[in-house]
Amino acid sequence: MFIQNQWYVAGFAKELSTQLLARTLLSEPVVMFRSESGKVVALEDRCCHRNLPLSHGKVQGDCLSCGYHGLVYNTDGECIHVPGQDTVPPGAKVKKFPLVEKDNVLWIWMGDLAKANIADIPDYPIHSDPRWAHKGSHYTINCHYELIHDNLIDLSHVGYVHGKTIGGTPAAHSEAQMFVERQGNGVTVRRFMKDTVPPPTYVRSIGFKNNIDRWMQITFVPGLIRIYIGAADTGKGFDEKNQMDQLGLRIFNGVTPETEKSTHYFWTAAHNHRLTEPNVTEALHAEVAQTFEEDRIVVEAQQRRFEQFPDRKTFAIKIDAGGIHARRVIAQLMEAEKKAALIST
Amino acid sequence: MFIQNQWYVAGFAKELSTQLLARTLLSEPVVMFRSESGKVVALEDRCCHRNLPLSHGKVQGDCLSCGYHGLVYNTDGECIHVPGQDTVPPGAKVKKFPLVEKDNVLWIWMGDLAKANIADIPDYPIHSDPRWAHKGSHYTINCHYELIHDNLIDLSHVGYVHGKTIGGTPAAHSEAQMFVERQGNGVTVRRFMKDTVPPPTYVRSIGFKNNIDRWMQITFVPGLIRIYIGAADTGKGFDEKNQMDQLGLRIFNGVTPETEKSTHYFWTAAHNHRLTEPNVTEALHAEVAQTFEEDRIVVEAQQRRFEQFPDRKTFAIKIDAGGIHARRVIAQLMEAEKKAALIST
Amino acid sequence: MFIQNQWYVAGFAKELSTQLLARTLLSEPVVMFRSESGKVVALEDRCCHRNLPLSHGKVQGDCLSCGYHGLVYNTDGECIHVPGQDTVPPGAKVKKFPLVEKDNVLWIWMGDLAKANIADIPDYPIHSDPRWAHKGSHYTINCHYELIHDNLIDLSHVGYVHGKTIGGTPAAHSEAQMFVERQGNGVTVRRFMKDTVPPPTYVRSIGFKNNIDRWMQITFVPGLIRIYIGAADTGKGFDEKNQMDQLGLRIFNGVTPETEKSTHYFWTAAHNHRLTEPNVTEALHAEVAQTFEEDRIVVEAQQRRFEQFPDRKTFAIKIDAGGIHARRVIAQLMEAEKKAALIST
Repeated sequence: MFIQNQWYVAGFAKELSTQLLARTLLSEPVVMFRSESGKVVALEDRCCHRNLPLSHGKVQGDCLSCGYHGLVYNTDGECIHVPGQDTVPPGAKVKKFPLVEKDNVLWIWMGDLAKANIADIPDYPIHSDPRWAHKGSHYTINCHYELIHDNLIDLSHVGYVHGKTIGGTPAAHSEAQMFVERQGNGVTVRRFMKDTVPPPTYVRSIGFKNNIDRWMQITFVPGLIRIYIGAADTGKGFDEKNQMDQLGLRIFNGVTPETEKSTHYFWTAAHNHRLTEPNVTEALHAEVAQTFEEDRIVVEAQQRRFEQFPDRKTFAIKIDAGGIHARRVIAQLMEAEKKAALIST
Repeated sequence: MFIQNQWYVAGFAKELSTQLLARTLLSEPVVMFRSESGKVVALEDRCCHRNLPLSHGKVQGDCLSCGYHGLVYNTDGECIHVPGQDTVPPGAKVKKFPLVEKDNVLWIWMGDLAKANIADIPDYPIHSDPRWAHKGSHYTINCHYELIHDNLIDLSHVGYVHGKTIGGTPAAHSEAQMFVERQGNGVTVRRFMKDTVPPPTYVRSIGFKNNIDRWMQITFVPGLIRIYIGAADTGKGFDEKNQMDQLGLRIFNGVTPETEKSTHYFWTAAHNHRLTEPNVTEALHAEVAQTFEEDRIVVEAQQRRFEQFPDRKTFAIKIDAGGIHARRVIAQLMEAEKKAALIST
Repeated sequence: MFIQNQWYVAGFAKELSTQLLARTLLSEPVVMFRSESGKVVALEDRCCHRNLPLSHGKVQGDCLSCGYHGLVYNTDGECIHVPGQDTVPPGAKVKKFPLVEKDNVLWIWMGDLAKANIADIPDYPIHSDPRWAHKGSHYTINCHYELIHDNLIDLSHVGYVHGKTIGGTPAAHSEAQMFVERQGNGVTVRRFMKDTVPPPTYVRSIGFKNNIDRWMQITFVPGLIRIYIGAADTGKGFDEKNQMDQLGLRIFNGVTPETEKSTHYFWTAAHNHRLTEPNVTEALHAEVAQTFEEDRIVVEAQQRRFEQFPDRKTFAIKIDAGGIHARRVIAQLMEAEKKAALIST
């Protein structure tokens, strides 16, 4: 159902404390915490005694103790103490998942422990770059994660769905120049719209008075979609090689399956303008949040129809190119994992 | 599951505008609208590009454009334009359903297009007859549609369920004279109650002070149950041949399956008395609405038990005669459609 | 799924009147009432005409009449009158369940009528003993009934889950002396905690100022768990043979499956102190209710995990001894019923 051997976003670093945080990821219930000595830990959220979620328990030192009978687990998920008895049943432990804090993001590995390599975690230096300010949120969206991929990779929908914020003229979006490229397990889509009406969010952000040139670069790898956006007065700012811009936006989109029918969406919006003014980051976040609520309505409605009619014919169109590449990446990686599993058994 | 080749009530004419109206009928999601030039249109509620319900889109001229990527559909459900490209993928279209406005009612045909014949739509001239005033409502009821047929065809339950409105003495209802007749795919039940206590709704409507004679004629055809009701002071009004009455009520009952377990119920209540007084129609509507809420509780409770215990034995009684005929009509028509489908394949 | 040939708690005697009471027991919908002559009756909650729950009807004399078409049932569940006709269809009846009022509790028998023996109903004289005052409640808990057994039989969890009321030091509970004994289809667990900190509820009840000795005796039989609890100043009150106590509590726990995934929990808390003071019974009831809400959270969370992961390995620990005995009793009784059913067919 899911690619297992891959780093996924599990949350934001600031969410983690000695208070237990429960989240279902890839249909597996996970409990996460920061231990008293500062370790970042993710375990299976289920006591191996009687199945109470460990998230009902509490952190004690570097350990987690169950909220029902006080069994104590270490950061590797091993039960190291059972109240009322001197020994621990042999084999009493729960799954442990590598969890890494990087660029203010929590990255988790749900697959084969032997294959987890911290060097494979995607970078997102914008989160700690003083030239950018950002704010983020976490949503759970009731659809298959690939519908969110489709939505983020194809931005031609922006004109139809998001007229009140980042849209603009629908036709301008449909007729944007588009370049789609696959590199390894990644897909990059670049879109250029020249001499076009600035959308409401852009006007509110930077005060454009006339037509603008816009560019968008969407980079997909499984688990993360980076959207880099720029705009400048027509003819003033950039060409396809030189992407300096008056208005720069960077959207981080962590897409992690919760179940087959629901998806965690961890996003931040960063901007490079008016950094010293108050409330600019909050205002931008609010506009992007409104935009994503419009997307939620769309993808959840699609999900219901795909569930109702899994076999009704659909037709691909030109703007689907990027999304189709991403679906192929996912399918190929899942196929490879399936084959590897067959060989190892 | 359902008779396909039949006209069903899809709504009231006044519900239709250039605002899209979404409704599931016979387990099929349908989007309906009145185009800018006044055409009455019903299409499959699903864009054939990526399955977004078309009801998220908007009417443009005589067309409907999808709310995700702007694909344009004509009134036959054919996609005639895809933004961002010059051609439309061959075969890109959605189902179209004949929709007809008649007697203030919207009638839809969900089956074989070749068999749709407007002349087969039932008449209901009362809706436009100046001697009658009416008001209606639309409910969704969580039960199989045949439980609603049973309820409307057998009015002996009126005394037990509707004591506060149209009931009267329970025994009088059970002992009413009853005549049941099947004609083709129709069933008619006539009931006469002589010299009986007037129920509260009748007293509030027309001020009966003494006992009355009541008659009810229920005419079932698949999709529509017409209930014609009359009452007069005992001995003053009518006999079985001459049904003039002091109090006349006409109830239109459009019964359209939404799914196997839920049903659209479109009803109106019309009266022939105090036509020039204000609020009489509204007051009657409110009393009938209360009555139907009492019925909803009954049929939804039955549905739960039938789902829980599909195999527990039940026993038919005398008052079931009309409902049993109606069930036979439905079963025979479904059987005929099944046979026709086998032959054609 | 359930032991059938056993008395179960169906409610409290004071709940029963001529108002119909509907409750699902062992996945069977049951309607209960006290007839006008005072008979205590339980019938299948389903009219055998068209499946309307009989609980929509009303009591008339010693009979129940259906709320849809007025069919009349006697206290044996036999239909004895059908309005509008002179005869009753042969065989028209619904199931009847023996129902007995004893010690303010309603006990029901859902199994083979030939095996129902009133002498088998467990006693609970505390409910009518003037030396004890009690108050009770009824909850529906969304878990399998054996998770409630586990919870009540193993009181070592009290220190971890109920620190605000009846808990005390967690370690003291885990290290309590424990004696577990099986007698026939019963299990008795006795626990002794010497010289331990009194929990908040005990202090509020009786004003303990120093450490106390505590004892608990839990007696399980299928359907009922009696918990007898006592406490006294350390060294002042009792030893293992002489259980006189300053603070005495008696908890009645009727555990009746509603379905495989939900359970009726009928409980009372009785105390032997400050009987003449106002509000003491209510205050104790409120503290125990808070305790049981804490348990509800635990057992419902366990249930979700057991449903998600029926096959994940769990490990038994020392404190499970009593609960494991109770599970064996249930398994053996169900196995015996299955064998008897095979022989009789």
